[in-house]
Amino acid sequence: MDKLSNGFMEEVVKACRPYTAQGEVIDHIPGLDQSHATDLGVTIITKEGDVYSAGEDDCNFSLQSISKVIILLMALEDFGKEVVFQKVDMEPTDDFFNSISNLENYEGHRPYNPFINSGAIATASLVNGSTVEERFQRILSFLQTITGDDEKVKLNEEVYRSEIKNGARNRSLAYFMESTGVLSNREAEEALDLYYRVNSIDVNSLALAKLGFFLANHGKISATGSQLIQSRHVRTVKAIMLTSGMYNESGTYAVDVGFPLKSGVSGSIVGAVPGRMGIGIIGPSINKKGNSVAGGQVLRMLSEKLRLNIFHDSTIV
Amino acid sequence: MDKLSNGFMEEVVKACRPYTAQGEVIDHIPGLDQSHATDLGVTIITKEGDVYSAGEDDCNFSLQSISKVIILLMALEDFGKEVVFQKVDMEPTDDFFNSISNLENYEGHRPYNPFINSGAIATASLVNGSTVEERFQRILSFLQTITGDDEKVKLNEEVYRSEIKNGARNRSLAYFMESTGVLSNREAEEALDLYYRVNSIDVNSLALAKLGFFLANHGKISATGSQLIQSRHVRTVKAIMLTSGMYNESGTYAVDVGFPLKSGVSGSIVGAVPGRMGIGIIGPSINKKGNSVAGGQVLRMLSEKLRLNIFHDSTIV
Amino acid sequence: MDKLSNGFMEEVVKACRPYTAQGEVIDHIPGLDQSHATDLGVTIITKEGDVYSAGEDDCNFSLQSISKVIILLMALEDFGKEVVFQKVDMEPTDDFFNSISNLENYEGHRPYNPFINSGAIATASLVNGSTVEERFQRILSFLQTITGDDEKVKLNEEVYRSEIKNGARNRSLAYFMESTGVLSNREAEEALDLYYRVNSIDVNSLALAKLGFFLANHGKISATGSQLIQSRHVRTVKAIMLTSGMYNESGTYAVDVGFPLKSGVSGSIVGAVPGRMGIGIIGPSINKKGNSVAGGQVLRMLSEKLRLNIFHDSTIV
Amino acid sequence: MDKLSNGFMEEVVKACRPYTAQGEVIDHIPGLDQSHATDLGVTIITKEGDVYSAGEDDCNFSLQSISKVIILLMALEDFGKEVVFQKVDMEPTDDFFNSISNLENYEGHRPYNPFINSGAIATASLVNGSTVEERFQRILSFLQTITGDDEKVKLNEEVYRSEIKNGARNRSLAYFMESTGVLSNREAEEALDLYYRVNSIDVNSLALAKLGFFLANHGKISATGSQLIQSRHVRTVKAIMLTSGMYNESGTYAVDVGFPLKSGVSGSIVGAVPGRMGIGIIGPSINKKGNSVAGGQVLRMLSEKLRLNIFHDSTIV
Repeated sequence: MDKLSNGFMEEVVKACRPYTAQGEVIDHIPGLDQSHATDLGVTIITKEGDVYSAGEDDCNFSLQSISKVIILLMALEDFGKEVVFQKVDMEPTDDFFNSISNLENYEGHRPYNPFINSGAIATASLVNGSTVEERFQRILSFLQTITGDDEKVKLNEEVYRSEIKNGARNRSLAYFMESTGVLSNREAEEALDLYYRVNSIDVNSLALAKLGFFLANHGKISATGSQLIQSRHVRTVKAIMLTSGMYNESGTYAVDVGFPLKSGVSGSIVGAVPGRMGIGIIGPSINKKGNSVAGGQVLRMLSEKLRLNIFHDSTIV
Repeated sequence: MDKLSNGFMEEVVKACRPYTAQGEVIDHIPGLDQSHATDLGVTIITKEGDVYSAGEDDCNFSLQSISKVIILLMALEDFGKEVVFQKVDMEPTDDFFNSISNLENYEGHRPYNPFINSGAIATASLVNGSTVEERFQRILSFLQTITGDDEKVKLNEEVYRSEIKNGARNRSLAYFMESTGVLSNREAEEALDLYYRVNSIDVNSLALAKLGFFLANHGKISATGSQLIQSRHVRTVKAIMLTSGMYNESGTYAVDVGFPLKSGVSGSIVGAVPGRMGIGIIGPSINKKGNSVAGGQVLRMLSEKLRLNIFHDSTIV
Repeated sequence: MDKLSNGFMEEVVKACRPYTAQGEVIDHIPGLDQSHATDLGVTIITKEGDVYSAGEDDCNFSLQSISKVIILLMALEDFGKEVVFQKVDMEPTDDFFNSISNLENYEGHRPYNPFINSGAIATASLVNGSTVEERFQRILSFLQTITGDDEKVKLNEEVYRSEIKNGARNRSLAYFMESTGVLSNREAEEALDLYYRVNSIDVNSLALAKLGFFLANHGKISATGSQLIQSRHVRTVKAIMLTSGMYNESGTYAVDVGFPLKSGVSGSIVGAVPGRMGIGIIGPSINKKGNSVAGGQVLRMLSEKLRLNIFHDSTIV
Repeated sequence: MDKLSNGFMEEVVKACRPYTAQGEVIDHIPGLDQSHATDLGVTIITKEGDVYSAGEDDCNFSLQSISKVIILLMALEDFGKEVVFQKVDMEPTDDFFNSISNLENYEGHRPYNPFINSGAIATASLVNGSTVEERFQRILSFLQTITGDDEKVKLNEEVYRSEIKNGARNRSLAYFMESTGVLSNREAEEALDLYYRVNSIDVNSLALAKLGFFLANHGKISATGSQLIQSRHVRTVKAIMLTSGMYNESGTYAVDVGFPLKSGVSGSIVGAVPGRMGIGIIGPSINKKGNSVAGGQVLRMLSEKLRLNIFHDSTIV
């Protein structure tokens, strides 16, 4: 087992950066373009409070699908497990994250889980606040508290405008859910807007590592000891991250990496090793499944060399 | 946190037995009928070597889908991870365990994972042995070694004949895989026969707990110290059990119970808490998804009261 | 072979009216309710110019899906076969008329044909006119010319408002097509509005019979000799009516009735026997597939007794 | 409108032969290979009893999917419409001819229609005869009577062996239908064997034209005046040919050609213009949907120039 250090982190980034060549940067999100094709940044925060970092850890990219983790945490805290999972199921699916077929075919027309687009939109209808703006500010404030950063962690207006403009598929999902009674017309419109906004919050690998550590630490802010989200809700979120966090490679990552993860098409990944550490990765070159190629490789190395796989604890006898 | 004891086990069984009324015993498998509707047996083996048991722990039922765990362990040991997962993927699916649509629609026509029927048949084509009989004897011997029982753990001939007679759906799956080149004609026929046989091995809750403990113990037999299956293969199997072990309730069990499980339509479940314990359950009343209703309730209680959820380790700070 | 007369028509309606008990009137469309459950009206116009009628032939109901025939005629006349069938295919489908799965899974994401909802919305984007209002007035005027009725054949404002209010599923279809590039954002919005409006035009069985006769007469108005739509376009529309005009019973009606038909969920049906006659039926009690039960029975009787099945011409030898 | 003559036929074949370059000959059926890539043979038989022919009208190829027409005729005559369509529906489908997904998903698990593989196998279980051999001889004799040819029209043993050897997909379909109760185990085995055999009967374009004429002539043999199949059953078969006879291009052919057709992957097509003529085509270069490219072009020309489209009778007024 290797020892964690900045030097070790540099080695990992060096070994994994060549994998960026196997993916492609998506170009329809403002801020993402070919100039970032070889970017790879990794940050780790341990239970001892140490921070290790390497690569382009200062790049800011929008949350994209990692928003789904934040929205689910907030919905669980606001409405509880019973209510949330009446609106959205918690089963993994083999359909794509933006699929609409399953909404048509699945019993009760519930989205399969909160980590596909339809599920995130449905979950976004369960955040308290009298207006979309108020709900968004609660979420932004929550994320700023977790990351301790209210400067870089903020709404990227350009990305938000782009989300609205290119949001036809998500609008289609929202109205489909209206047609089957999962959402009212007002809920559909507002949940969609909230979802676009949270997708558009800027983060870097440090912010993601802090989010990962918050999950690893069962919902408690270490500095203040404040339990922001009940630990049983955080446990629920981590379980769903393991079964459904990496799009249609979730099963492969459960085997190869073995701890809760959630990725976004901006090439970012948040990882939470329960009780041990949080990991934030940014690597914009993604594969066809939507996951950062080099970022995935970093996770495989970290899991192997630091023995992070939760299915392989210390041997019993 | 409760303390494990036979008394505690009795309480759990008493509290959960009423849930048997919510399921139904399937009646097309020899040995299973309404006379077993209220049966519920649970056995636990801990890393200290203690055995705790309650309820109808001496009932013998055929392995059914838990065969998939054994076949996968053997295939991984015989051919390695690369070869196995070229034939079958390791992604969870939202389709039913006996679904054939996904074989038609999924790229490469690979089964989604080794724990749906098509996947188990494909995996069964990767067990060494010059004849089906030889392969079966290797698997039976392996299971007898793990359970330390070569008396009760044996082929149930009546169940085997029933598997063949009622095996049209599985034959359809096998020939479909022949049609897409996943299996040759000979492989299809032989894998099908091996699969029927392993499904027909009789076990009780003690045998299942021993299997669970073998997985929890990373593939090593405690008594002899013999590493029967490489630990990285056992880790792989446990990860797939978590994402896909409980049919279309796998995601729900990942959240509610939080450790690797595999169920069968005979109402049996094997559980493995990595590094801590193995659990065997038999409760033939199953719900529409194919899982033991009372058995599931036992797992929820054990996870909660003994703190077995792997997403909720001891708090860090 | 029976002889057509008003007495014959009365007999047919009398024999078929009991079938109204096998269906149900949908209650979310203004003007339709249980008070119409036993309604059945039939009108026939022959090539000799004779009109035969029986039952509740004076009821006014909105066009609903029969709008799809009008929109397709107009799009073909405005843009030609090539352009129209680049946007929408002409193949029958086994999916429901409001299905969205096929838009996701079918190559090119084209709707299967112009007679499912997505296909009608796509077709509605191909009607000339600088505004939705102008396009609608062209269509309304066209239908008024065909039916010779500009009093009863007009927009039902109440139905139109209901279409908008309950239009979430159609909105979902339209935005899905925007997301795959079948429609631009402006096209999606405008086509949806035009579709809602044409669905909301009121007609009775005489108006439907006139539409049917217009199709049977290859697009020519008998009274004036004016060829409103080129005959090859009318031929195309009739072929699609035969393969796809009766929702998921189209194949059954091709066998049992054997000439081009199109039905709507208001229980109305238009029929065109090429070169011979037009048929208009209103019978609001519909089955689960969306077709008028008694209306279907009327068509079976007419086809049999008047020898209208186009697959059974006079015997050759 | 052109006049039918051998010269006219030569022109049609000359104009259409270049389209053979747009398709490919499938190479897994004995007798079919690249040497036939530019073959194109057409034969027409009119109600006056005249025979017109051009191109490679003397090539012998196996029936392949045109078998489905023969099997359905025989099943309807043996068991009647009610019984046949309890086992198989008569609705067009958008799935491929060898699809198995629809068997899993469609209510009642009936095949959609008798012209997809599963439907043909189900229909083949409804042919009278105490053994498969007896059933096959009845069908062969029937086809020999229709074509007046018991020399060339016979079982191709090599093709039959190939059908068995490469029949995994069809076996999969048959066993799936056993698993859902559509067929018993014995029916599945025997229907499969009968289906393989009828697929393997050799025909040429003259034989196909005679079959087409038999259908156009409503089931009566002109020479003897013998009504081999009741006319209402022939009408049923022609209707299904129009909605489902040309694989997933059936809708396109209904529009472009407009009369009942059935194609096979050997590149053969049978056409029936009700009351007027039978058409037989052989053109082994097929497109991805399974239809002869040049053969399709021949049908478009014939329909246009001889006015054969049943949706475009002589104008009324």
